Amino acid sequence: MIEPRVFPKEQLREFTARVFAHVGVPGDEADLAAGVLATADLRGIDSHGVARLSTYFDLLEAGAINPRPRIRVVRETASTATVDGDNGLGLVVGPKANEIAMDKAERVGSGWASVCNTNHFGIAGYYPLRALDRDLIGWAMTNSTKLVAPLWGAERMLGTNPLAIAFPGREEPPIVIDLATPVVPFGKIEIALRKGEKIPLGWVVDAQGRPTDDPQALIDGGALLPLGSDREHGGHKGYCLGMMVDVLCAVLSGANWGPYAPPFMLRQQMPERSVGKGIGHFFGALQIGGFVDPEEFKRQIDDLVRTFRRTRPAPGTSGPLIPGDPERAAEALRVRDGIPLLPAVVDDLRQLSRRTGVPLDA
Amino acid sequence: MIEPRVFPKEQLREFTARVFAHVGVPGDEADLAAGVLATADLRGIDSHGVARLSTYFDLLEAGAINPRPRIRVVRETASTATVDGDNGLGLVVGPKANEIAMDKAERVGSGWASVCNTNHFGIAGYYPLRALDRDLIGWAMTNSTKLVAPLWGAERMLGTNPLAIAFPGREEPPIVIDLATPVVPFGKIEIALRKGEKIPLGWVVDAQGRPTDDPQALIDGGALLPLGSDREHGGHKGYCLGMMVDVLCAVLSGANWGPYAPPFMLRQQMPERSVGKGIGHFFGALQIGGFVDPEEFKRQIDDLVRTFRRTRPAPGTSGPLIPGDPERAAEALRVRDGIPLLPAVVDDLRQLSRRTGVPLDA
Repeated sequence: MIEPRVFPKEQLREFTARVFAHVGVPGDEADLAAGVLATADLRGIDSHGVARLSTYFDLLEAGAINPRPRIRVVRETASTATVDGDNGLGLVVGPKANEIAMDKAERVGSGWASVCNTNHFGIAGYYPLRALDRDLIGWAMTNSTKLVAPLWGAERMLGTNPLAIAFPGREEPPIVIDLATPVVPFGKIEIALRKGEKIPLGWVVDAQGRPTDDPQALIDGGALLPLGSDREHGGHKGYCLGMMVDVLCAVLSGANWGPYAPPFMLRQQMPERSVGKGIGHFFGALQIGGFVDPEEFKRQIDDLVRTFRRTRPAPGTSGPLIPGDPERAAEALRVRDGIPLLPAVVDDLRQLSRRTGVPLDA
Repeated sequence: MIEPRVFPKEQLREFTARVFAHVGVPGDEADLAAGVLATADLRGIDSHGVARLSTYFDLLEAGAINPRPRIRVVRETASTATVDGDNGLGLVVGPKANEIAMDKAERVGSGWASVCNTNHFGIAGYYPLRALDRDLIGWAMTNSTKLVAPLWGAERMLGTNPLAIAFPGREEPPIVIDLATPVVPFGKIEIALRKGEKIPLGWVVDAQGRPTDDPQALIDGGALLPLGSDREHGGHKGYCLGMMVDVLCAVLSGANWGPYAPPFMLRQQMPERSVGKGIGHFFGALQIGGFVDPEEFKRQIDDLVRTFRRTRPAPGTSGPLIPGDPERAAEALRVRDGIPLLPAVVDDLRQLSRRTGVPLDA
């Protein structure tokens, strides 16, 4: 019998929430966490959705993540805060810290929260989408386990350190920017490995820091390259962006920075030093009305979006996209048709279902 | 007789201030503007120093820039402001708006200023350096005349839209990040043209949007590519960053965004539409103590800087730099030896000297 591979989004979301609850996460926080993963699946970012549920579950079950964190503001001003996530799920700590930033923005024009003692928070794009719900401009960044070499380095020193920001339109959809700071995500290397294909030069260096087209070189101790790849194509800029994210998320909050960010999975080697608590996030929110009439801002965003859509296309393309277009296209399909899952992910969820007694099929 | 080509920094700075004053800029603002250009020359960013003085002068003399702007906050909250630069020199409006952001940060933890009706503001890195003087984390961005194609576009739609941010160390020098969002600056194309050399693929598309190694193609209606160059190497990310800067600087302030940013030089074609006032900047400042003990922050930055300096080097390199290293190296030399100027720049300054009666050689 062939397993079903497309699931209604509500079904996956409920399963996820119940799995989190099974391992001790309070109901409302389990719902919140499930919502973050569901947003990734809905927007087509499959690597960050339920495909990661078993990793979060393993960490919770092993006691490596605290299911009932007491999330605290440890220092603050009217527009800034440092949040200690008490080693909770990033999927819970992230949304709560993001709210702290947004609440401050509504009160004094802008709000900024740097977060320590937390864990992976899902897709960075989730957070500015919540800011859009409140008519704010939202930013989100996180650091993560080392995987990326600095330009001219032969070893992993930075995580994929994404940054996201979104701007609302009036009649046009919002501009939603969500980018990681290396050239490509780890997932692209995995795909090449599965297919037995070479990768383009400029994605990876091997364990000696040499450029390579062999995806296995990353697994064997190599590193992803920062956006820009080499000096000639601006690799120093991608490295700078990765370091910027690292400092705002981890040094500013008292989390582990650079090569010392702890791993996301059990049985991965712990860094040789601890220089802070957990990994770090950074959230920001700006009140649009603190700068300009919000309706006028949105009219200008509409005009900008339409202007960029009229850009003369490069040969062989249909022209530039607006940031967020690919995710919106995925979401439109998946709201209608459900979430397609790879067989390996379905197997993973079935196993979680057996371990927890939570039924996958309603 | 061979013209001298190395000038003491004070001499150039005083000449610059007197040239600005000659064309109607009040004395203290002329000093401020001269300081911004001098910082670029001192830090080795020759394209943004006195090499541009005659362009600023021409614009002031022609009445295209207002020498005595009434710079006003037109909207604000406790932590945000929109500043109208009254079409003043960006070299004056920029520092004043940056101060507004820094003052707010000292009062309420963070401060953000979006600026319209302004002009080119020199190097973005100047502004976070001023924040370091006040023990703040400073950000700066600006939009500018169109020169960069979006990924999959065949025409110029965005400026080089730089962003800068700096973080103070305790014993180590600060981390100073200052990067423009295309792969390379215009100056790299000019150098290739002068030398009659080809350029690497990934820098430029021609007027039809095709990849090219011919630097002349940029002059003939082509465009710079965004950081990442092509889809395979993350060109969509550089495009997203350029758009982020554009929205924060121009849409948020009511300046001209995207392809409508006015040109920096006289006799350049004006955009077909005006959608706001002048170009735009965006400044931010964060109080470190609003997040963490500032001394602890600086100790961690020291540790991070030392950790990254110990990165195993890639073959053929001496290992990763810390952002700001090249500019610090230039500054150390130039403080001691003076500012070396190309003969064409010296000629330009001599001509300015004749036009204004301000002596170049003290």
